[in-house]
Amino acid sequence: MIAVLKPNAAPEKEAELRQYMQSLGLTVQDIAGESTHMLGMAGDTSHLTPDMFARFDIVDHIVKVRESYKLANRRFHPDNTVIRCGNHVIGDGSLAVIAGPCSVESEEQILSIARDVARSGATFLRGGAFKPRSSPYAFQGMGMDGLELLKIARSKTGLPIVTELMDNSHLDAFEKYVDVIQIGARNMQNFSLLREVGRLKKPILLKRGLANTIDELLMAAEYLMAGGSFDIALCERGIRTFETATRNTLDLSAVPVLKAKTHLPVVVDPSHGTGHWELVEPMALAATAAGADGLIIEVHNTPHLALCDGAQSITPEVFHTLMDKLRRVHEAVNR
Amino acid sequence: MIAVLKPNAAPEKEAELRQYMQSLGLTVQDIAGESTHMLGMAGDTSHLTPDMFARFDIVDHIVKVRESYKLANRRFHPDNTVIRCGNHVIGDGSLAVIAGPCSVESEEQILSIARDVARSGATFLRGGAFKPRSSPYAFQGMGMDGLELLKIARSKTGLPIVTELMDNSHLDAFEKYVDVIQIGARNMQNFSLLREVGRLKKPILLKRGLANTIDELLMAAEYLMAGGSFDIALCERGIRTFETATRNTLDLSAVPVLKAKTHLPVVVDPSHGTGHWELVEPMALAATAAGADGLIIEVHNTPHLALCDGAQSITPEVFHTLMDKLRRVHEAVNR
Amino acid sequence: MIAVLKPNAAPEKEAELRQYMQSLGLTVQDIAGESTHMLGMAGDTSHLTPDMFARFDIVDHIVKVRESYKLANRRFHPDNTVIRCGNHVIGDGSLAVIAGPCSVESEEQILSIARDVARSGATFLRGGAFKPRSSPYAFQGMGMDGLELLKIARSKTGLPIVTELMDNSHLDAFEKYVDVIQIGARNMQNFSLLREVGRLKKPILLKRGLANTIDELLMAAEYLMAGGSFDIALCERGIRTFETATRNTLDLSAVPVLKAKTHLPVVVDPSHGTGHWELVEPMALAATAAGADGLIIEVHNTPHLALCDGAQSITPEVFHTLMDKLRRVHEAVNR
Amino acid sequence: MIAVLKPNAAPEKEAELRQYMQSLGLTVQDIAGESTHMLGMAGDTSHLTPDMFARFDIVDHIVKVRESYKLANRRFHPDNTVIRCGNHVIGDGSLAVIAGPCSVESEEQILSIARDVARSGATFLRGGAFKPRSSPYAFQGMGMDGLELLKIARSKTGLPIVTELMDNSHLDAFEKYVDVIQIGARNMQNFSLLREVGRLKKPILLKRGLANTIDELLMAAEYLMAGGSFDIALCERGIRTFETATRNTLDLSAVPVLKAKTHLPVVVDPSHGTGHWELVEPMALAATAAGADGLIIEVHNTPHLALCDGAQSITPEVFHTLMDKLRRVHEAVNR
Repeated sequence: MIAVLKPNAAPEKEAELRQYMQSLGLTVQDIAGESTHMLGMAGDTSHLTPDMFARFDIVDHIVKVRESYKLANRRFHPDNTVIRCGNHVIGDGSLAVIAGPCSVESEEQILSIARDVARSGATFLRGGAFKPRSSPYAFQGMGMDGLELLKIARSKTGLPIVTELMDNSHLDAFEKYVDVIQIGARNMQNFSLLREVGRLKKPILLKRGLANTIDELLMAAEYLMAGGSFDIALCERGIRTFETATRNTLDLSAVPVLKAKTHLPVVVDPSHGTGHWELVEPMALAATAAGADGLIIEVHNTPHLALCDGAQSITPEVFHTLMDKLRRVHEAVNR
Repeated sequence: MIAVLKPNAAPEKEAELRQYMQSLGLTVQDIAGESTHMLGMAGDTSHLTPDMFARFDIVDHIVKVRESYKLANRRFHPDNTVIRCGNHVIGDGSLAVIAGPCSVESEEQILSIARDVARSGATFLRGGAFKPRSSPYAFQGMGMDGLELLKIARSKTGLPIVTELMDNSHLDAFEKYVDVIQIGARNMQNFSLLREVGRLKKPILLKRGLANTIDELLMAAEYLMAGGSFDIALCERGIRTFETATRNTLDLSAVPVLKAKTHLPVVVDPSHGTGHWELVEPMALAATAAGADGLIIEVHNTPHLALCDGAQSITPEVFHTLMDKLRRVHEAVNR
Repeated sequence: MIAVLKPNAAPEKEAELRQYMQSLGLTVQDIAGESTHMLGMAGDTSHLTPDMFARFDIVDHIVKVRESYKLANRRFHPDNTVIRCGNHVIGDGSLAVIAGPCSVESEEQILSIARDVARSGATFLRGGAFKPRSSPYAFQGMGMDGLELLKIARSKTGLPIVTELMDNSHLDAFEKYVDVIQIGARNMQNFSLLREVGRLKKPILLKRGLANTIDELLMAAEYLMAGGSFDIALCERGIRTFETATRNTLDLSAVPVLKAKTHLPVVVDPSHGTGHWELVEPMALAATAAGADGLIIEVHNTPHLALCDGAQSITPEVFHTLMDKLRRVHEAVNR
Repeated sequence: MIAVLKPNAAPEKEAELRQYMQSLGLTVQDIAGESTHMLGMAGDTSHLTPDMFARFDIVDHIVKVRESYKLANRRFHPDNTVIRCGNHVIGDGSLAVIAGPCSVESEEQILSIARDVARSGATFLRGGAFKPRSSPYAFQGMGMDGLELLKIARSKTGLPIVTELMDNSHLDAFEKYVDVIQIGARNMQNFSLLREVGRLKKPILLKRGLANTIDELLMAAEYLMAGGSFDIALCERGIRTFETATRNTLDLSAVPVLKAKTHLPVVVDPSHGTGHWELVEPMALAATAAGADGLIIEVHNTPHLALCDGAQSITPEVFHTLMDKLRRVHEAVNR
């Protein structure tokens, strides 16, 4: 961390600031700039925040030089994290495909879709049992019953299940029954939830918040890892911008940026990322070409009757064709 | 809701769509546009989502004409909501001022600040006991001990206390001890929390999420109101934009927009909204001139030693001067 | 266009509004909604703006149902526009690759790079002669001398040249010497420039502005087309968001969205879109997989000595390898 | 400027980088951080860009410590700039009010509005003769005839005129006839225009671009000042964000931020900043309370018939009442 001082800082004020820095165990170094004087701090700054220095009157601003995440940082952990659920893998160079409906709606629905996507080559089954909905009047998911149906679908298809946890009161059930626990975009900075989920030491799919930077996504992963969970897949699912032609703006450059900054695998959600089923195919192909480790795709057998997100769900037929194209592109970039 | 059809929609497809609309209890009306055919739907559409129609092949897009919030809507509830905690009020035309430190740090600290802000005319005391922090390594608040210290500060000053709830496991304690429960920006769409807090029927300060629209803020309030809590103050605290000179971009036009759309009172947080203590005064004055019902301001006796948010906290002395100016501006706009 | 009326609109006010609509040659239709009354307008609304109706007291808001662009609209012009410069093409299903340095710096530099990229398979040569720079103290380009050097490079390699026009005073020179005139992101809504350039009837590469929506990009194209220029390639080059890990956020979903809305070809700029040379390859591959008609890529022989944009320029060697991968991905998605 | 090096940089590579820095006349200093090595550069860095160092292989990233603007920087020019047009002033502590229609539409219209706003206490007259319109089919302004009508209005009311320049071909006319030349938001980074206008040495109202940071606004001012124009008023007029309830998001914190960074006066445009006439009053009052030196407000005698921006124009009657409130608030904050 570097403190940029205001011009003409009084020497006694500067001495006070140096003393404070040293009291925190830091080594202080003078740095000269063009008409600028700075104080560099060396030592362990991971528990410090810029705020601690910003309020000294003589400080103009604080420059942070290093990332705040450690466990998630590729700089300190160069080898890729590989997540394994039985035979199904995320992060080993293959393309993981998590497919299924937005919500579990009935046994018939989830079984039918699960069989279809398994047959086409999906490697994980998604399906919401607890749903975060912006309106209190909208369908909120089947709850525990939905979880039961997912278990049946898993036993019939062999696909591990990925489903969203919204509340600490469901921790036990998710620990027992769920293969990969999804933390939704709206809960990426629900730190109470992150702290508890981290203790379960299960695979987690962590979605990037709508207004969260890549560094904040990595800090959320750091929460989970500090709790003891190391099998974390990061999910880019679109950020909020001024553009309204799409539901969100899918930030595909987050894929290579994350791959450079962290050893955790990266998954892309072209369904929420765009909000329109016609855009799912081109963006799934683009994510694969950009180097994603996996995709999470909403598939519904009767999208126009879906209880949520019908506009962005593709049919099993479209999914089948897409899988072929995905294999071709994955091969083309990894040859 | 209006469905805009694609050109040359097949008549049998259109008949199918009409039938579906009618099956939902809606009256369907043909609307002619320039080279466009549309179907208008009349009836109760509050439980419907555009998605339900968007996926019919012949639909180009869906236009929503009306707001989804009912209980929070001024259209149906024209009279202002006034929140009362003993003699202290938000929403009656006076200017409520909620002041105090980011975090409770010690008995001495919270008592000293509480007395100072009370003396200067603050009407509520703020102070965090549970803190949402983006780093797992940063100070996370004093927890229940912090709540105890806030109770002491209330008993010494008479100021009702406003503090943030992060977790359903603290619902009982907050119900018993806290006057106004704060829902933080990062939890504005934590629907599990909203659902439970709504049942307490206590006054709530609901902060706008960093990436949430005004309509989404009103839908979050609708969650609380659907649970039975009607005393809700909405809080503008800055949104995330491309500008980095300030921590967030304080959207003051949200004040008059909200006052037109809802009967709930509106509070502004110039501390989080800007991130810099020098900007708190001008933005607090601006918020008052824009018609805010209240302000929430971070005050710390030794900002450079604060355990969080020191850079945006003002001292009791600066707060005292600010209160004078606020009174003058409030009077000037309300004369 | 539809006018949503306020509740309880006075009949005489409504009559006045209807009369005004009719005076503009529009047919007015009553539309019933849930507790809402609306007036639909049918007829030619292309010259009308919502503002014209929004200010009537009884109007709550105006809903626009149709796009404002006509000439650029695929709805009215279903066939793809194909741009030809001799043997070089944009928009015929092949992948056009426009490569070269940010700025022309010397004859040696531009010739060396032009030969390298031609050998690797680039189909157009880019190079700035006039440079928009955010600082008045930075290198502003070689001007007319740069244009001369581009002509020499074209004659040596056969590659058509793409270069940016910033000022109407250079119209004549660009008309005579340049194959594809580039309109930069910062000039996308410089309507004086658009009006004049449109009259030249030459191929144009129109870049999307940093804060411009897809619809505004299409309206800018409409300006050029209204002037008589129909050979326009639209260029996605990143938009401005809150994310700072990349220079801009490359909005690749704009590719399929544009392909659906317009018949004009779409080119992607992964260099400006990311600002980091390491990200150029993954995003170029992703753009190709998303269905782009072309790419524009900054290539420099000595990036660390480049007079501008060195951080985002790739070397001829990296470009050569990239071309191989691009061909493989292009083939994979178009098989 | 500081170069943060990658870990384990080869000594010979580091020597090469140092040599390059020294060849630019900079003094290089070693800086130690936590597991980080940095090179600080002291000397005149105003003509350097981070790009020049970013591409050396061993550089992780570049940190810029100082602003790039010099002439606009309060650090070097602490005294406020005061702009005078006869008796009318911007920046001397009074509140300048620039009022008038979006476009000049007829002699009767501009004279009527000019007299009304003068009577209510406006200090400058605004009115567009050349209009930047997003549609080529919309009204583009009266052009030179509009300029003539503004001159008549000035002679009848004594109000100096503020009007937008869009094109270098009108420089002579604007130099002769216009008191304050407006550079519109869409032209804030039209560097060809900035360069030419800067040479006129006339007062300029420079509007912030929709997606431009405060620092970029100051760099645009630097262009004008480098050309010799020092009487520049900066105008906050709303930035583009995800919120759609308002046309733009008026960033009022830009007012105190700019007042700290620069000596140039700051004007706020609540009309474009919000897009709704009902929001003009609260935001004009808020801007005044935030410390703005002036306001620019759209006033139209028959807003529902205005040829542009009718939705955001207030009537002369509303303007008259607003002026009273503005005086009260201005007095309250400056007492």
